Amino acid sequence: MPKVIFRPSGHGVQVPPGTDLLEAARQAGVELEAACGGEGTCGKCAVRVVSGQVDFTSSGALCDAPLLEGCVLACVARVTGEDLTIEVPEPAQLGRGQFAPENELHLVRPELLPSPSEFDPHTTKRLLQVAPPQPEDGLSDLDRLTRALKQECGKEPVVDSLFCLRKLAEVLRADNGRITATLARAQDEYRVIDVQPGDTTLRHFALAIDVGTTTVAVQLIDLAAAQVIAAQSDYNDQMPCGLDVISRINYARHQPRLEELRRRVLRTINRLIRAVAASGAVDPSEIASASLSGNTVMTHLLLGLKPEYLRLDPYTPTVLHLPSLRSHEAGLEINPEAKLQFSPCLGSYVGGDITAGILCTDLARDAEEINLFIDIGTNGEIVVGNRHFLMACACSAGPAFEGGGIECGVRAATGAIDKVQVDPATGAATYSVIGDTLPRGICGSGMIDLLAQLFLAGWIDAAGKFDRGRSCPAICHEGRRASYVLAPAAATASGRALVVTEIDLENILRTKASIYSASALLLRHLGLSLDSIGRIYIAGGFGRFLDLENAITIGLLPDRPREVFQYLGNASLMGSYMTAVSREFRRRQLALARRVTYVELNTAPAYMEQYTGALFLPHTDLALFPSVQTRLAATRVAGKQSSL
Amino acid sequence: MPKVIFRPSGHGVQVPPGTDLLEAARQAGVELEAACGGEGTCGKCAVRVVSGQVDFTSSGALCDAPLLEGCVLACVARVTGEDLTIEVPEPAQLGRGQFAPENELHLVRPELLPSPSEFDPHTTKRLLQVAPPQPEDGLSDLDRLTRALKQECGKEPVVDSLFCLRKLAEVLRADNGRITATLARAQDEYRVIDVQPGDTTLRHFALAIDVGTTTVAVQLIDLAAAQVIAAQSDYNDQMPCGLDVISRINYARHQPRLEELRRRVLRTINRLIRAVAASGAVDPSEIASASLSGNTVMTHLLLGLKPEYLRLDPYTPTVLHLPSLRSHEAGLEINPEAKLQFSPCLGSYVGGDITAGILCTDLARDAEEINLFIDIGTNGEIVVGNRHFLMACACSAGPAFEGGGIECGVRAATGAIDKVQVDPATGAATYSVIGDTLPRGICGSGMIDLLAQLFLAGWIDAAGKFDRGRSCPAICHEGRRASYVLAPAAATASGRALVVTEIDLENILRTKASIYSASALLLRHLGLSLDSIGRIYIAGGFGRFLDLENAITIGLLPDRPREVFQYLGNASLMGSYMTAVSREFRRRQLALARRVTYVELNTAPAYMEQYTGALFLPHTDLALFPSVQTRLAATRVAGKQSSL
Repeated sequence: MPKVIFRPSGHGVQVPPGTDLLEAARQAGVELEAACGGEGTCGKCAVRVVSGQVDFTSSGALCDAPLLEGCVLACVARVTGEDLTIEVPEPAQLGRGQFAPENELHLVRPELLPSPSEFDPHTTKRLLQVAPPQPEDGLSDLDRLTRALKQECGKEPVVDSLFCLRKLAEVLRADNGRITATLARAQDEYRVIDVQPGDTTLRHFALAIDVGTTTVAVQLIDLAAAQVIAAQSDYNDQMPCGLDVISRINYARHQPRLEELRRRVLRTINRLIRAVAASGAVDPSEIASASLSGNTVMTHLLLGLKPEYLRLDPYTPTVLHLPSLRSHEAGLEINPEAKLQFSPCLGSYVGGDITAGILCTDLARDAEEINLFIDIGTNGEIVVGNRHFLMACACSAGPAFEGGGIECGVRAATGAIDKVQVDPATGAATYSVIGDTLPRGICGSGMIDLLAQLFLAGWIDAAGKFDRGRSCPAICHEGRRASYVLAPAAATASGRALVVTEIDLENILRTKASIYSASALLLRHLGLSLDSIGRIYIAGGFGRFLDLENAITIGLLPDRPREVFQYLGNASLMGSYMTAVSREFRRRQLALARRVTYVELNTAPAYMEQYTGALFLPHTDLALFPSVQTRLAATRVAGKQSSL
Repeated sequence: MPKVIFRPSGHGVQVPPGTDLLEAARQAGVELEAACGGEGTCGKCAVRVVSGQVDFTSSGALCDAPLLEGCVLACVARVTGEDLTIEVPEPAQLGRGQFAPENELHLVRPELLPSPSEFDPHTTKRLLQVAPPQPEDGLSDLDRLTRALKQECGKEPVVDSLFCLRKLAEVLRADNGRITATLARAQDEYRVIDVQPGDTTLRHFALAIDVGTTTVAVQLIDLAAAQVIAAQSDYNDQMPCGLDVISRINYARHQPRLEELRRRVLRTINRLIRAVAASGAVDPSEIASASLSGNTVMTHLLLGLKPEYLRLDPYTPTVLHLPSLRSHEAGLEINPEAKLQFSPCLGSYVGGDITAGILCTDLARDAEEINLFIDIGTNGEIVVGNRHFLMACACSAGPAFEGGGIECGVRAATGAIDKVQVDPATGAATYSVIGDTLPRGICGSGMIDLLAQLFLAGWIDAAGKFDRGRSCPAICHEGRRASYVLAPAAATASGRALVVTEIDLENILRTKASIYSASALLLRHLGLSLDSIGRIYIAGGFGRFLDLENAITIGLLPDRPREVFQYLGNASLMGSYMTAVSREFRRRQLALARRVTYVELNTAPAYMEQYTGALFLPHTDLALFPSVQTRLAATRVAGKQSSL
């Protein structure tokens, strides 16, 4: 078999001819980024063939210049019979994410959270005095434990954990039978998940985990003290395997890659668990339960469930409501018998992050008022309803707000331009950069600002095209392509100018259109108008940097009085927290999930019509955006005055 | 840290000073035999120090000669600060065991076995037609499976297996929803343990496993055909870590060695599983359940439970009645969700092999007659009772019958002398050898024959001492030690004479005395005489080679009419088979186990008295052995006549 050597690491692997280089790299343990999941469309896995011949047909995603230098896309290029030497470029710096401060809960209405008196977690710790071993009584250690527990709990507990049995003899003898048992409660059953010598009832911990496509967040909860004692988030290690859920599904098509994705997200979660445990001075084995929320694809990937059918008609997931699992089954490095529970998913593209998220809203309360919940991420999910009905849908927003498909797009991390002001008169931009460094690129909130400001000042039209009739130093027209220089070469980290093209603008328009039209369609489905909506909740990490005015200006969010909007932050994490500390909130979540009707928008005939109108700034139907109309008029008047 | 290199393999390891060489060898992956479990008493782990200095005080178990050549006992010799080179002698050949033929069930009364119509195993397979995925019905693959099963079984099954969920999507789509589900049944609950495409209801398999201290046996049962389709046995890979349960407990004192013992017995079981699966043309993943029986120590070691407290007063095991486990938890390489159930143990030294074994006897029936069950192995276990009572005890017979502690003792394998005849006049032996080769040593049944024949002919006295008054070419007296040449150097495999010493005879006497006195004491405890016993069952692989007359002559078995004895063979395996194929037999076994009273003989004051009498041939109280008295008189008369 031909051998493939990767430089600079020197890792090598033998693979059969026909293997693609992405797969060869995977087998050699060499990390390559494949934002599109290995579909040959994102161009991020470009590598240079130093020696040997590969089978590669040029792909649109790789521009011509690097091809001349012997560059190919690893996901498309295939090994022939020859040995190969492949040069891997330096990995793009992910940068340190701009994550929420550790304990920032972001919740507009903390009164929705379970109060300390409402704490009623899924595990309980009991201090027991177990009778000493006696000759000839015919009782094993387990028998004596079971008797003591029956006395304490009124019923015989289930003890079927080898982990507990393996330590039982020592634990019972360490403090003369004085032990603390950790019990998992389910319906009318107690299961022993841990035994510890002495009184450890005050050391009782749980986790809330949000498993996002882009980021993963973990909270460590001290159940005895009824408070969060540490929280951490980080990028999902699956990122190099695709930026959005569709790319991940594509990447997972081969079994070893599905397993790779599973290991990557587990690695991320376990790294964060170690971090919060260290920060809270807790041993991971003291953590007795975890509540996890993720979208349907992330949930499938975390458990190694084949996600392929999620993207094939009729979009049927393997599982929506997961049984509770033991942590060692899923691979979480906490107490091996810890009870894991997953927020239920509603459909292929509305997952547990949403059923967790709506717990943080009045949608989970007995309200008459109709409320709207919008989660903006690489996917958009929308829920609308009140005490009488709940309806949900999803739209594939795409990764544009996360920097995907945008030439100089980056995630909201150090070096990202996150806020932009445009001088209406000159079209020149001023901006702020996360971390106050030279800019590396522009993130979603920056793009929204830029788009809104250029539009208001008339530098781009409602279709997102640059005005070819006015001269602007920042805008250059080359043939049919126009682009906007956001930062000149001298002012950037890389020494290359940051340029926004009309293609980038189109991508942003498609993303905002899909979210807006999904909300609009869902309401139309129900015969409701936007005016009937009491509150609009915005969830998702992205929302934190969002300028509401600009988001309405471009038509991403509906033009409603500003006070109806509530930003929730990481509602998926908060909902996980609620279900982790309270069995009542978990029951509420399951009941909510049963009530929601999931609609598949892809198959709705009216969708394209709604979407097409929303592809404009802010919309073809300007009457939907009265405040933008007013603002437009005002700004353009001001612009004209200043240009006089 | 000093480095230790082992020759001839060349494996090396760095260990801190003070580490013993047995531990260093373990860490280096070098196999050393330690029949005594690393207590410095058996001498089997002798190695030669080629270079470097070890800390070693001569031990009685190592005779002087090899010490002069730089030999030490690896279990006692400790690493100092110096690097070491250690020569490991060629491993003693275990030899291929003389195991029971594959399908030999050895059962005297096959009518006790469940009939095919009584087959009612712990798992069931159901052919289902699962509804196809539909758009907008909000049902996952799991939901559709659950619905189909509810319709089939009348109640909702538990599906909490990731293994099943991971294959579910493909299985449901492989044959248009036509699938076979394997369900584990427990009380009033169904748990899904496998899903397969199409109709596989006729491929339904279970295992019966006997986990013995010396040998492990596995039967593969075709549940659909109601028959055993393959069986295999082999030595327990734990053998190099101690010959009897006490040595294994000693060996397991350090956590890594407990883990090593667990891995060794698992390796043995999994090897046998692969063998029976191959022989039966079954994929191991098709095996849906296993019934395991082992003594209490073996059960603890197989599950990684610390056995130390089994040998410390008050001899309390961690567990007697094990919960059912899933095979992946215990490490059996069959279907990962296969249901494992263990025969319940009665006490530290009467285990699941006995509660399985008595299922093969009238003790498990509603009999008025009082029966006695004796299992002779490295440990002896005795059960006596009828429908009104059941009582059990154990005695540490020691490994003499397996060749342990006997200078030329070997196990009943190729090259072992298994039957002996002694010419009463000359004292010369003729013998048969397993495998018809030159002899390597003598096994238990051969030793019993030899002892009985030498005693009957008057060459040894009732105390097991050679007659110093009569000249016999085969007996040599050196000072206070006398020995018997069983085979001269020229007639053996090794070219060294096979010699039986008075110390060997003492070991055999101690072993037979402990078994006899335990039976006698148990009966006395109950106020019963031997005459009240209806049937005497002999279990254990050892019994297969046993000559009943000779066993009674030496006083191992009570002197009762020969027709009351019934040899059961591997009753532990047979009982496992019964509980594997029938839930009714499993319930019967659990009910039996609850009925048995376990007595600890070590603490009974009358034990030493009984034991001391039984140390003689056949006993100090000859009235207990009338037929031996008759035989003695006859043989000695015959001997005198022929020497005239």
